[in-house]
Amino acid sequence: MLITLTTDFGEDSPYVAAVKGVILGINPNARIIDLSHQIAPQDLRHAAYFLSQSIPFFPAGVIHVVVVDPGVGSQRALLHVTVAGHSLLVPDNGCWTSLATQTSSPPSVIRLTEQGYWRQPVSATFHGRDILAPVAAHLSLGLDPRKLGPATTAWVNLEERPPVKRADGWVGEVVFVDHFGNLITNLPGERFIQQVHRPLRVRVAAHEVSRWVRTYAEAEPGSLVVLVSSAGTVEIAVVQGSAQQRLAVGVGARVEVLMSPDFPSAVSSGQLSYRRPEL
Amino acid sequence: MLITLTTDFGEDSPYVAAVKGVILGINPNARIIDLSHQIAPQDLRHAAYFLSQSIPFFPAGVIHVVVVDPGVGSQRALLHVTVAGHSLLVPDNGCWTSLATQTSSPPSVIRLTEQGYWRQPVSATFHGRDILAPVAAHLSLGLDPRKLGPATTAWVNLEERPPVKRADGWVGEVVFVDHFGNLITNLPGERFIQQVHRPLRVRVAAHEVSRWVRTYAEAEPGSLVVLVSSAGTVEIAVVQGSAQQRLAVGVGARVEVLMSPDFPSAVSSGQLSYRRPEL
Amino acid sequence: MLITLTTDFGEDSPYVAAVKGVILGINPNARIIDLSHQIAPQDLRHAAYFLSQSIPFFPAGVIHVVVVDPGVGSQRALLHVTVAGHSLLVPDNGCWTSLATQTSSPPSVIRLTEQGYWRQPVSATFHGRDILAPVAAHLSLGLDPRKLGPATTAWVNLEERPPVKRADGWVGEVVFVDHFGNLITNLPGERFIQQVHRPLRVRVAAHEVSRWVRTYAEAEPGSLVVLVSSAGTVEIAVVQGSAQQRLAVGVGARVEVLMSPDFPSAVSSGQLSYRRPEL
Repeated sequence: MLITLTTDFGEDSPYVAAVKGVILGINPNARIIDLSHQIAPQDLRHAAYFLSQSIPFFPAGVIHVVVVDPGVGSQRALLHVTVAGHSLLVPDNGCWTSLATQTSSPPSVIRLTEQGYWRQPVSATFHGRDILAPVAAHLSLGLDPRKLGPATTAWVNLEERPPVKRADGWVGEVVFVDHFGNLITNLPGERFIQQVHRPLRVRVAAHEVSRWVRTYAEAEPGSLVVLVSSAGTVEIAVVQGSAQQRLAVGVGARVEVLMSPDFPSAVSSGQLSYRRPEL
Repeated sequence: MLITLTTDFGEDSPYVAAVKGVILGINPNARIIDLSHQIAPQDLRHAAYFLSQSIPFFPAGVIHVVVVDPGVGSQRALLHVTVAGHSLLVPDNGCWTSLATQTSSPPSVIRLTEQGYWRQPVSATFHGRDILAPVAAHLSLGLDPRKLGPATTAWVNLEERPPVKRADGWVGEVVFVDHFGNLITNLPGERFIQQVHRPLRVRVAAHEVSRWVRTYAEAEPGSLVVLVSSAGTVEIAVVQGSAQQRLAVGVGARVEVLMSPDFPSAVSSGQLSYRRPEL
Repeated sequence: MLITLTTDFGEDSPYVAAVKGVILGINPNARIIDLSHQIAPQDLRHAAYFLSQSIPFFPAGVIHVVVVDPGVGSQRALLHVTVAGHSLLVPDNGCWTSLATQTSSPPSVIRLTEQGYWRQPVSATFHGRDILAPVAAHLSLGLDPRKLGPATTAWVNLEERPPVKRADGWVGEVVFVDHFGNLITNLPGERFIQQVHRPLRVRVAAHEVSRWVRTYAEAEPGSLVVLVSSAGTVEIAVVQGSAQQRLAVGVGARVEVLMSPDFPSAVSSGQLSYRRPEL
């Protein structure tokens, strides 16, 4: 049985190793897959974006353990969540709720209360090791999740800030900056590209970007371009460089997609390449 | 059979991959678990702390390969160690000896001399790849460790510096700084908390910290607090921040726990929360 | 069936996790081994060095997926390569061709064209997830690589810059700097050491290094030394320190090995230790 791990522990501390040891102590045959231990410390938005863009690719039956837990030891609950066929063990802090927006069927949520499946004694600050790891191991041995505690319909939702439609375009924000410095926004790129019949400019910080490409290699190295990300959203990139460094912006930065009603379509047929209007 | 890897190789070099390749070349069914490749370069204290806080959580029968080896190629031995039911392959530099202090039964130590289980030729600078990896793979196939070389009772001990009791308290030090910037000390937190009937102040660098909490979430973000770490020791933390940055101290910094004999108990019953005495 | 992953994705983004999810969605029994996700972004020379020093240690039958792909989405092909018994799935950018120079038998190369083995729809910027991952999973289920597309004998070669022989020595360059700051060159160390009967000096940047050691521990901490790397090439190192920081040089830096014809042999027998001539 597969168990994945997503944490903000970094890789220099013994915390990840301790979690793995506890799992293997209960189920030596568990197969553990690292997703990331580099979620930004206690950053729930990072965790939420990460999970929304990775969990859907996994098959059903995998147990996803997520330990990004600024509220550890407080009254916040720990949950077993089944959403869109995926099973997660998570703190009740909303890191998983964006997965629920991707499906119409409601999630099934259980509050972990049955201490018989926990490691004893439970520390005040490391529930990943003392509660989530042993519970994941027991699940991987076939335990019915309903034995973990009572079902609940109350949980913390991470508020999403969807893009806003305006007369001249849409306003959204940067929701993730990847390792390459690409700025990934929450603006649904495919819809724009399918629907527009006019040049689109993208404004971020004090910059305007109007060169749309389908892929990085279409423009010369160093070019500032807009494209549709692998997540299907508007992405601002510097070819073989870092848009984050070039524009000096990060997560939360306002991004506008502006229509130019004065100009006829400049969409090249066959590829999503837009030409900037002559000014 | 499970083999874990703990190294200071980092993740950009081919060294970890080469170790994995050698293991799988001998036993393609070996299950390899990464513990960390981010031990600070050649830092035996980091390695020792890491192992002391992670290996005990694993079940018996796992082979733990540790490659933090400033003495590679010198006359330092390589060892197979069985300690408290755990099996390690380590350079003879003391990185593992803190595990022996956690148990009363003496370790069983073998010096690796049987070159038939090594990769040939053995390089001068990469015994992890050329000796420890193939030996681990052979062990995972069922090889009796006694065939690896002679038993020995002489090995390098990493000197521990236990906390010192003084009239007004205890003096210890920071032994680890985790990814969050929490300062983990060698002062046994649980003993203090069970025994004290007086407020305790903690002094580190030029700072005094007297707000004891059971868990981070008890104090507002940015608060400087003292708590019992998940390792059971005194920990100094900034809630949702970095104590390392706030106090500008690191491993080796002196930490004092001071009793205040003039004040009666301020311990709140039911939680480990101490109030600072009015000055 | 084993699948390894080598990417430049870093570990904070969901890209690695998505690749793992896609593989496990097709073959839940695939065993995935991380080699590195810290190849420098879009750095083909880093990828080439990494692969040349790690893939040869693996047994045949493993599928090595490499995603360092500055040309993603362009007309560059994706390839299945069999070279020296190893199987790789790679972009056609030369990252693998140094492996071919290690063997006399020609590589067998297939161009991936059969979209039935791909994830649909294929994004423009993430062929690792949408093409290489599902193809690797199908191969791990036993698919014959010849079904992936047509064989080809045309592919991109990464130009190598071999060391140059001169009257007074050889000229090469730094090809890799590891996590410790050791400078690994492309100068074949073993040949020098076997053949020379004279002191050798190594010049890098404005520095001359003439202290040859067999292993780091032969010199005191802080010493600048030359040795034969675990890859068999000339390496410049600072004992328990960083030669990269000391000399302020990196990949591509020119390195000269200079013979000193005026001096008789100073090679200590039994170890590769050279003494600097008195000046």
